[in-house]
Amino acid sequence: MKEKAVVIMSGGVDSSTLAYWAKKRYGVYGLTFNYGQLAAKETLHAKLVAETLGISLKKIDLSQLETVFRGVSPLCDRNMEMPPSFRSTLIVPFRNAIFLAVAVAYAVSIGAKAVFYGAHRSDAPFYPDCRKEFFEAFQEAARSGTATGIVVDAPFHNMAKSEIVKLGKELNVPFELTWSCYLDGDKHCGKCESCVNRKTAFKEAAVEDPTSYQA
Amino acid sequence: MKEKAVVIMSGGVDSSTLAYWAKKRYGVYGLTFNYGQLAAKETLHAKLVAETLGISLKKIDLSQLETVFRGVSPLCDRNMEMPPSFRSTLIVPFRNAIFLAVAVAYAVSIGAKAVFYGAHRSDAPFYPDCRKEFFEAFQEAARSGTATGIVVDAPFHNMAKSEIVKLGKELNVPFELTWSCYLDGDKHCGKCESCVNRKTAFKEAAVEDPTSYQA
Repeated sequence: MKEKAVVIMSGGVDSSTLAYWAKKRYGVYGLTFNYGQLAAKETLHAKLVAETLGISLKKIDLSQLETVFRGVSPLCDRNMEMPPSFRSTLIVPFRNAIFLAVAVAYAVSIGAKAVFYGAHRSDAPFYPDCRKEFFEAFQEAARSGTATGIVVDAPFHNMAKSEIVKLGKELNVPFELTWSCYLDGDKHCGKCESCVNRKTAFKEAAVEDPTSYQA
Repeated sequence: MKEKAVVIMSGGVDSSTLAYWAKKRYGVYGLTFNYGQLAAKETLHAKLVAETLGISLKKIDLSQLETVFRGVSPLCDRNMEMPPSFRSTLIVPFRNAIFLAVAVAYAVSIGAKAVFYGAHRSDAPFYPDCRKEFFEAFQEAARSGTATGIVVDAPFHNMAKSEIVKLGKELNVPFELTWSCYLDGDKHCGKCESCVNRKTAFKEAAVEDPTSYQA
């Protein structure tokens, strides 16, 4: 029997590809979060992707964190302006650490040996909690804080987003079911940083982008 | 003006004393959690203690974590037996990491320079997320994951619980407002591990215990 691994799934391209990658190696347990983000629908897209893999997806409601992140990041605050390219205000501070901490607790409770999340090289310069030194320190904290040999890793940390798109194409990831937009419209807005990164990655990978953008 | 610090407050003896200790040095922002624990009333006791200090107390509802911890620890599961002394089942895995991760996010959002929690020497042998190697690794994760110089510390990590009681006495901590019991009765049960540790610490410290125990 395969070892178990918990994969944090946001419904986007990176974590969906990660779940497909992990499924070949582990018994995958998906985990997704509502943390007060405007794009709350991303958890529904995570569910759609999980269904195509036939894996469970646990959804944890941390929406009260919105009271921490309101006024801090436009991702969680409708009254802040959503910039079209990276600004430091886009950072939801230490968000990935919160997700990883819950994921480690979940992993210990189900006897999983690893926790994976979709951080990659294209995000690392901007988002400190996508960097190797962060998740390596976090792995140390997880090992000592649980007294287990649990692995915390970002298997794609050396890959650009476009390389993830290429890998996802090979793995038949249903990109049409994924959601990247920071907003909560009917379609991807096509303008926010996340939409722009998505478009660019498909273009650079020379993979057809099935997304219907508003702009 | 004093620097700001976030103190995680559970309404018990250790974290209440910590808040009193920190108040002499920092502008203290209390933070308390509902995480599905039976003793949900501890957050009310944290509020009473915060009021005596004249500090704010932010309460974050993470009660959905109960779905992670159900069947794992009797602290979060009414159907599990509550043991009278430490058993490994008492551990809510990586709980302190979840609290610290949210506390770091909160600290960054309000511009605080430190996060403190009440881990101490008497708990460290039993609870891995009370140990120095854990919170030191976590501090590294916090610094790299937020790209700040934030401090994560357990200032009492070298103190026994009885020494904390002595310090609390000196600082005029209102012990009568604190709550330690793992259960949710009208009075402290007097039998669970946490009640036993509380009783023992007051006795060893030769400080009068204002608590009215059921047994």
